[in-house]
Amino acid sequence: MSLVDTAYRPEPTPDAAYVHALAADAPIAHDVTRGSLDVRLATRHAGMRQVTLRYQLQGPATAPVVFVAGGISAHRHLAANAAHAEAGWLEELVAPGRTLDPAQLRLLAFDFVGADGALDAPIDTTDQADAIAVLLDALGIARLHAFVGYSYGALVGLQFAARHATRVQRLVAVSGAHRAHPYAAAWRALQRQAVALGQLQCADAQGLSLARQFAMLSYRTPEEFAERFDAPPEVVNGRVRVAAEDYLDAAGARYVSRTPVTAWLRLSESIDLHRVDPRDIRVPTTVVAVEGDRLVPLADAVTLLEGLGPNGQLRVLRSPYGHDAFLKETDRIDALLATALRAPTSGDPA
Amino acid sequence: MSLVDTAYRPEPTPDAAYVHALAADAPIAHDVTRGSLDVRLATRHAGMRQVTLRYQLQGPATAPVVFVAGGISAHRHLAANAAHAEAGWLEELVAPGRTLDPAQLRLLAFDFVGADGALDAPIDTTDQADAIAVLLDALGIARLHAFVGYSYGALVGLQFAARHATRVQRLVAVSGAHRAHPYAAAWRALQRQAVALGQLQCADAQGLSLARQFAMLSYRTPEEFAERFDAPPEVVNGRVRVAAEDYLDAAGARYVSRTPVTAWLRLSESIDLHRVDPRDIRVPTTVVAVEGDRLVPLADAVTLLEGLGPNGQLRVLRSPYGHDAFLKETDRIDALLATALRAPTSGDPA
Repeated sequence: MSLVDTAYRPEPTPDAAYVHALAADAPIAHDVTRGSLDVRLATRHAGMRQVTLRYQLQGPATAPVVFVAGGISAHRHLAANAAHAEAGWLEELVAPGRTLDPAQLRLLAFDFVGADGALDAPIDTTDQADAIAVLLDALGIARLHAFVGYSYGALVGLQFAARHATRVQRLVAVSGAHRAHPYAAAWRALQRQAVALGQLQCADAQGLSLARQFAMLSYRTPEEFAERFDAPPEVVNGRVRVAAEDYLDAAGARYVSRTPVTAWLRLSESIDLHRVDPRDIRVPTTVVAVEGDRLVPLADAVTLLEGLGPNGQLRVLRSPYGHDAFLKETDRIDALLATALRAPTSGDPA
Repeated sequence: MSLVDTAYRPEPTPDAAYVHALAADAPIAHDVTRGSLDVRLATRHAGMRQVTLRYQLQGPATAPVVFVAGGISAHRHLAANAAHAEAGWLEELVAPGRTLDPAQLRLLAFDFVGADGALDAPIDTTDQADAIAVLLDALGIARLHAFVGYSYGALVGLQFAARHATRVQRLVAVSGAHRAHPYAAAWRALQRQAVALGQLQCADAQGLSLARQFAMLSYRTPEEFAERFDAPPEVVNGRVRVAAEDYLDAAGARYVSRTPVTAWLRLSESIDLHRVDPRDIRVPTTVVAVEGDRLVPLADAVTLLEGLGPNGQLRVLRSPYGHDAFLKETDRIDALLATALRAPTSGDPA
C-alpha cells in the first residue's frame, strides 16, 4: 500500500521541540517532542492530497508507545507538560499516577487530518488511520503498545486496527462503534445544515456556534441538564430564554474562536462516512460503551462486539454524562484503561 | 376572572358552517360546525390582546362534549367529515368505531392562540386554557365530558384542569407533563436560534425548515431511524449526505409551506413557559407516558403523577415512535382512551 508520495519525507520542522525538563518546579523530567510533517496521502474519497501531520510525543524514549485520540475537537496536546504549559484536552487522564502516566508511557497524539481547515474534501477514518501509519513510519515506531481512542478517536482506532493490524498490540475504543448510527448521523447532518445556513450570508461563526450547541446536546444527557438547568425560563425583551441558553451560547462562542469552519464540517462528515467491518479487526479490543450515550447506542457496541468475536470484550458504564463520560468519569475510565492496557496479548514478549 | 372584554361577543362568523350530511356517499350524518370569534384575552405575559379563536365542533348536538388538542402544529380539523373533506391531523383516532367516534361524541377542537401568526408575543399555556373557557362560554358548553390532550395539548389540558376545574370531568394527558424538561427546553431554544439565524439572512423559510427538522429528531427515536435510514452515506458534489436527509428535507419544506414563522416561534416558546403545580389539578387525570419519549422523560410523568395524588393514574407505553406515539400507536392509544373516557368520575350522573 503506497500511502505516502516518496518525494515527501518527514523532516524535522521549525516548530519541533525536544525538551529536557530541568526546571526546579518540574520534579519529573519528561521528554516532549512536537513536530509536523508534510505528506501526500492517498485519501479514500478525494485522491492524493497534501496534508500536514502535527504530532506530539511525550514520555521516555524507551517506554511503550500508546497512541491517544479523542473527539473531532481533540488535538495533539493531551496535557500540560514542561515544554507546553497550557492545559490539554485529556488533563484528567494523562497525569502522574494515572494509567496514561507520561513518566511510564510514551504518549503519541496528533491533530486529525483536516483539523487545520486546509483540506476541504471528504475525509474518511481510513485516511486518518493511514496518516497515523505514515506518522509511525516517520517516527520509527514499529508497533504501538496500545491505541486508546474515544469518540471519533475510537472510530479511527478501529479503522487503524483493521488496516494496520501489525502496528498495534491492543485497542481501547470508547464511545465509538463500527459505523455511525443513522439517528446520530441525521443529527450531525442538521448541524452541518446550520453551518450552511450561516454561510448563506457570511454568518459562518453564528452557524458554527449553533451547530456546536446542537452537538453539545448530543454529547450530554437530560439527567445532567435537569440537574444544572432547572430554573424556569425568563421573558427577555419579549422573547423566552431558557435556563441552559447562557451556558450553550458561551460554549458555542468558545468553540467558534478555536475551530475553523471547514475543519468542523469535514470532521463532522467524517464520522458519518465511517464504516469498518468488525470481522476485519484482529487486534485485542476493549470496547467501552456508555449506557445513555445519545450518539452511540449500547446496541451498536454489542454489534461491534459480536463482530470482534474472540478479540473483543465489552465494558459498560452508566453515566449522566452520556457520550462525554470519557472526559468526565475519569476515575472509572482510568480503572478500565489500567485493566485493558495491562492485559497480555499474543504479541507481548513472554 | 375577567378573561374576555365584554365589548366583544362571540357571533356567527362568515365561515361558520352547519351542515347536515345528506350526500349518498356519507352514510352517517354528522353535525359539523366551524366558526371563529374575536375576543380580547388577558394574556399572562403580554397584557390584554385581541385574538381570534377558530373552532370546529363535530358530532350530535346532544352527545357529551370532548375537547381534543394536539401538538403545536395541530388545529381544529381533527378528521375529514361531510363538511370538510380534507384529512385532519387525528384521522386514525377520530373515526367510526373508535373511542373518539364523531357519531357518539361531540368533538371540539380549536386552532391554538397564536397559530395564525397574528400574535407576536409570549403565549402561555394559561392563555390557551383561558381561551378555551371563553370558547365554551360562547358555545354554551357548561362542562366538558373530557379533555384529551397530546403533547402541547396535554400541557394546555393540565392548565385548563388547574384553572377551570368545574368545566371538565376528566383529563387524558398524553406525552406532556407539568413543566418542560430542561433538556427539551434547550433543544427547542436552539431550534428557535436556527430560525433567528435564518431571519438574519432573510432566509426565514430555511431557518424554520431546519428548526422543524431538529424538532423531528426529538419527536422520533433512534430505533425508528435505524430501521428506516440504515443506508451508508453518499458523497454528492463533494459533500457527505446521510440517508435520512432527503426525508428530513422534505418534511421541513412541507412544514414551512403551512406554518407562519411567528406562530411556530411563539408556540415553541409557549411549551417552555409552561408550568403548572400538579397539586392544583383536582380533576381525574390519566397521564399517558411513552418510554423512549425524548422530550418528556418518564420521570417527569411520575413526578406529575405524585403531585396529582388520588386524582392521577399513569399508563406507560413503549413505542419506537417516542413522543409521536400518540399519532402512530393508534390502536393502543384508542384502547387507553376507551378506558379513560368510560371511567366514572364524581361528577357523573348516578
